[in-house]
Amino acid sequence: MTAVAERAPAAAGGAPRRTDRRRERTRRALIGAARRILAEQGTTDVSIQEITDTADVGFGTFYNHFETKAELFEAAVREVLEEYGAALDEACAELTDPAEIYCVGVRMTARLAHLRPAVAQVLVQVGVDYAWAGEGLGARALRDIQRGMAAGRFTLADEKMGLVTTAGCVLAYLQVALEHPDEFGEDDADTMAEMLLRMLGMTARSAQAVAHRPLPDLP
Amino acid sequence: MTAVAERAPAAAGGAPRRTDRRRERTRRALIGAARRILAEQGTTDVSIQEITDTADVGFGTFYNHFETKAELFEAAVREVLEEYGAALDEACAELTDPAEIYCVGVRMTARLAHLRPAVAQVLVQVGVDYAWAGEGLGARALRDIQRGMAAGRFTLADEKMGLVTTAGCVLAYLQVALEHPDEFGEDDADTMAEMLLRMLGMTARSAQAVAHRPLPDLP
Repeated sequence: MTAVAERAPAAAGGAPRRTDRRRERTRRALIGAARRILAEQGTTDVSIQEITDTADVGFGTFYNHFETKAELFEAAVREVLEEYGAALDEACAELTDPAEIYCVGVRMTARLAHLRPAVAQVLVQVGVDYAWAGEGLGARALRDIQRGMAAGRFTLADEKMGLVTTAGCVLAYLQVALEHPDEFGEDDADTMAEMLLRMLGMTARSAQAVAHRPLPDLP
Repeated sequence: MTAVAERAPAAAGGAPRRTDRRRERTRRALIGAARRILAEQGTTDVSIQEITDTADVGFGTFYNHFETKAELFEAAVREVLEEYGAALDEACAELTDPAEIYCVGVRMTARLAHLRPAVAQVLVQVGVDYAWAGEGLGARALRDIQRGMAAGRFTLADEKMGLVTTAGCVLAYLQVALEHPDEFGEDDADTMAEMLLRMLGMTARSAQAVAHRPLPDLP
């Protein structure tokens, strides 16, 4: 497998060529390796050799696909979070109350610390910058806050402060719950969601009613 | 200046020896250099050579005082935050409402992003772990939350969730406000404090009344 072969473009209008399929397989293997490393080791501080070993591809292959290690890890993280955001949207498809949709997002994302710690680890690593960048889960939270404000469920001076505080609380929760798994459980995730609803301007009574409804199943 | 001279203990019961004073001066110079590097470069990712150059001490001197670079930076960060916590306590000495004392802490800590970005940078770097460790500003926030609960000003299922959410919001605010200084101002810090008071169980009306009172002066 040479760099030249891997860089060959797809035949225009035809079926994907064998080298293109191989190229895509290699890219998938590298992203899969990055996801495994993030999940299992909770770090991006590994050598490119370790990544290509994990992906079971040649060392030199790496640079046919990514210019830097950071670029690979960003692709892996973006993929995980897009999948998760889509799953959340699907789970909430039957719901109509924007406050509940926001709340389910918070409760399920916070639960990642307990149910899927590897994904939670990724979220903590990308951190506030990711939420603020208007992508994936950050964009989803902002959308739900705006809908809640439009529906009169949330009373908020500034939607951007709703995003900052939501992201800050969820990320802080994930971090401490990952580090102290014995001290936090799923009830705490719901308590935090209830607190966030109050923060967004709901009364204590409404917040409590919304934050402990049965959760929809993730697809 | 030799390692042997720097390691010599103080003469028991007597005045500090010249070598002890010199040793303390060197330690202070190293911590001061670390604080400058944190403030000006916003990173701990520098060489020990750069630290000793900044401190104007010999390279070999470093290991007479700290085993690792991380140990030095931790000492520097702890010092900055202790000073700040003490200044906050002094500024709040005249206040009696625990909700207001908590709120002043949030408003002033969030303002660091605007007024003392170098210190804010340090806070963002130590992050949630620091708040959770029960030291400095984290301990202070927990104390204020407990007092607010005892006084019936806060209604909270669990004080630990109050600490996690407070730390998460303040740190997220500092991070985005440092990165996007044109999009955030001191009013946003107060808006966040108001939101946190609602989160801790105060009514919208009470939260608004407390969060925009005149701030005491920091000593």
